[in-house]
Amino acid sequence: MRSVEEHRAAVAAVLGRPRTVDLPPEDAVGLRLAGDVVAPLSLPPFTNSAMDGYAVRASEAVAGAVLPVAFDVPAGRTDVPALAPGTACRIMTGAPLPDGADAIVPVERTDGGVERVRIDEAPEPGRFFRAAGSDIAAGEVALRGGERVSPATVGLLAALGHPTVRVSAPLHVAVLSTGSELVEPGTPLRPGQIYESNAPMLASAIRAAGGTAEVVRFVADDADAFLARLAERVAAGGIDLVVTSGGVSAGAYEVVKDALFGRGVEFVKVAMQPGMPQGCGTVGFDDGARVPFVTFPGNPVSALVSFEVFLRPALRAAMGLPGGPRRTARLAEPVDSIPGKRQYLRGLLTTDGDGTDSVSVVGGPGSHYLRWLSQANCLLDVPAEVEHLAAGDPVDVLALNGTD
Amino acid sequence: MRSVEEHRAAVAAVLGRPRTVDLPPEDAVGLRLAGDVVAPLSLPPFTNSAMDGYAVRASEAVAGAVLPVAFDVPAGRTDVPALAPGTACRIMTGAPLPDGADAIVPVERTDGGVERVRIDEAPEPGRFFRAAGSDIAAGEVALRGGERVSPATVGLLAALGHPTVRVSAPLHVAVLSTGSELVEPGTPLRPGQIYESNAPMLASAIRAAGGTAEVVRFVADDADAFLARLAERVAAGGIDLVVTSGGVSAGAYEVVKDALFGRGVEFVKVAMQPGMPQGCGTVGFDDGARVPFVTFPGNPVSALVSFEVFLRPALRAAMGLPGGPRRTARLAEPVDSIPGKRQYLRGLLTTDGDGTDSVSVVGGPGSHYLRWLSQANCLLDVPAEVEHLAAGDPVDVLALNGTD
Repeated sequence: MRSVEEHRAAVAAVLGRPRTVDLPPEDAVGLRLAGDVVAPLSLPPFTNSAMDGYAVRASEAVAGAVLPVAFDVPAGRTDVPALAPGTACRIMTGAPLPDGADAIVPVERTDGGVERVRIDEAPEPGRFFRAAGSDIAAGEVALRGGERVSPATVGLLAALGHPTVRVSAPLHVAVLSTGSELVEPGTPLRPGQIYESNAPMLASAIRAAGGTAEVVRFVADDADAFLARLAERVAAGGIDLVVTSGGVSAGAYEVVKDALFGRGVEFVKVAMQPGMPQGCGTVGFDDGARVPFVTFPGNPVSALVSFEVFLRPALRAAMGLPGGPRRTARLAEPVDSIPGKRQYLRGLLTTDGDGTDSVSVVGGPGSHYLRWLSQANCLLDVPAEVEHLAAGDPVDVLALNGTD
Repeated sequence: MRSVEEHRAAVAAVLGRPRTVDLPPEDAVGLRLAGDVVAPLSLPPFTNSAMDGYAVRASEAVAGAVLPVAFDVPAGRTDVPALAPGTACRIMTGAPLPDGADAIVPVERTDGGVERVRIDEAPEPGRFFRAAGSDIAAGEVALRGGERVSPATVGLLAALGHPTVRVSAPLHVAVLSTGSELVEPGTPLRPGQIYESNAPMLASAIRAAGGTAEVVRFVADDADAFLARLAERVAAGGIDLVVTSGGVSAGAYEVVKDALFGRGVEFVKVAMQPGMPQGCGTVGFDDGARVPFVTFPGNPVSALVSFEVFLRPALRAAMGLPGGPRRTARLAEPVDSIPGKRQYLRGLLTTDGDGTDSVSVVGGPGSHYLRWLSQANCLLDVPAEVEHLAAGDPVDVLALNGTD
């Protein structure tokens, strides 16, 4: 049997290194810059007023002086004349400073005149300007490769005039679930049928991890039909990874195993509970496309645990994003575990008033309990060799819900 | 002058209480359930096998017994006959248990026969079943109102057959920026022009806070044109809030103030730095629509600080979502502050090896420095009465970047 670490490494190897994509800055929030961004222009591009007021020559604008207002400079004026000696001009915040002016008198320090202005307080030379290049000079590195795009980064990229930015690409994942017992929501169930839940759950988890996902719906338990449906979707393009759930155990109708065995996917047993039957590999298609595959077991709890333990870290790494921080919490109650298997129990993590994290187990060990899974906010990671943990013992936890 | 708390309350009052919307579960991740979700069916809907194996009568399946295999039950079979006495049937994981059977023998504990099966180990009655309703019974509350939708919740809602779920609606915000100096990225700048950056920055911040946003592009500095453009967009529907930046200071061309003054928006000064000129209110349009407005100053740093201090908490509350946790950090260096104004400084928050948060100031106080803003990950919140803080003093910080 494989260890969790061995299979985690195998999944990471299948997904490979980040690739890059050019996106509008607004669509790149949370993604990592693929390289340094050099400023193609200075910010501000031109020296401009930081206040509404009057542009003057400081030597002329003594307290009590009255100067004729030669012209107005609203923000956005592109044909600003030079300021003639002995005159002032009205200037608005953000408007370019005319040649010849070397000081701004804020409107509050004048009589606010339109034809003529009386200066009540002499300006301090150099204040109330924003000098060209004072934020950033053309040619400087504005942002470093590896930084993550935030709303403020979007502002900076926009101010620099970048319509797009190169970032580590979000991976696009096709999520398939298999099983002829699966029915789409909105249609009535017949005896023996259940509503499909793994694919929308895994697609949501992939999106919460920063990827994009589509659900490829209902595949019959037939290997040829399964492969044909996959080949069709892969040929249409844009798929970075296929994730399946179900169809990998020891039964007589194991469509995923039947279809992918011998085509590059290795099916293994991992010493963990839940989530033992796992698989990953790269599948070649007739048109030459080669697509990474990761296969999960079909029970809902097993599928989500498999995602959190194997795929989430690999997916984040393949997008250049950090993994979730590992946390340790104190057990609120004793826990028994199966010896020889690393166990992932659903848990509820709470932070006490003094900042200590404590965790209790939610529900039983059964891998079909969606209700308990939906009430958990973490997984307890109990090492294979551990059979018993006492209340108060430290235990590693993985955050589960993918929301803040 | 208004205090920060007073204006925060005014903005919250303008936005009002959460409203609800029905969304497919996959599109509702991170949103809050508007009410309890009652299970319309049991999970599992029918008793089914937890293993690939054979369904038998426990009394007949003693070790060494050989039973004829009467039929197969793959998962999804909807016409399962009753199990006749003295027979077994092959059954797959998830397949319905036939009437008459009361035990499952896993395939590993048999010879795996197809026509006839030899039982190597007598089954434990009741094991390897998942009883109908053992996860949840029809009529039970599956999820409580107020819970946030997670990937696991999506799984549970899907398994219960819910095509949609009622949640607190994400607010849709129209973001306008004003200023005839503003040019769209991709077009060359003329002297006196700058690239528009506030609207994409604020739209990104709104999305990172859980809302949706659209940018309403380039409005000339003309109050009538501004109102006409707004009325047109509002009439098209779907706008929960309009956010503007710029056009609110003391200048001669203050389009936002000129257009909205006397129409329900109150323009105020808030005792803070940056971000003093603020406004909010509800504007009535000719077609009877009434739309909340929040107006920010035009400098990029002021605009983003205003968002974080006033709009983010109000927006989250109006979507039923929690605000960001307030944190306290130790100053890495002394800080001077303007007396009488609450100051929000850009900062870099780091967590030391021992878990202590420490924070240092990034860049100067200027409100046009996008570069420093993009390098900050928090705001230091320095109270109005404070003039000086020493290295090691505690200071409140607000997380800035909206990414995990």
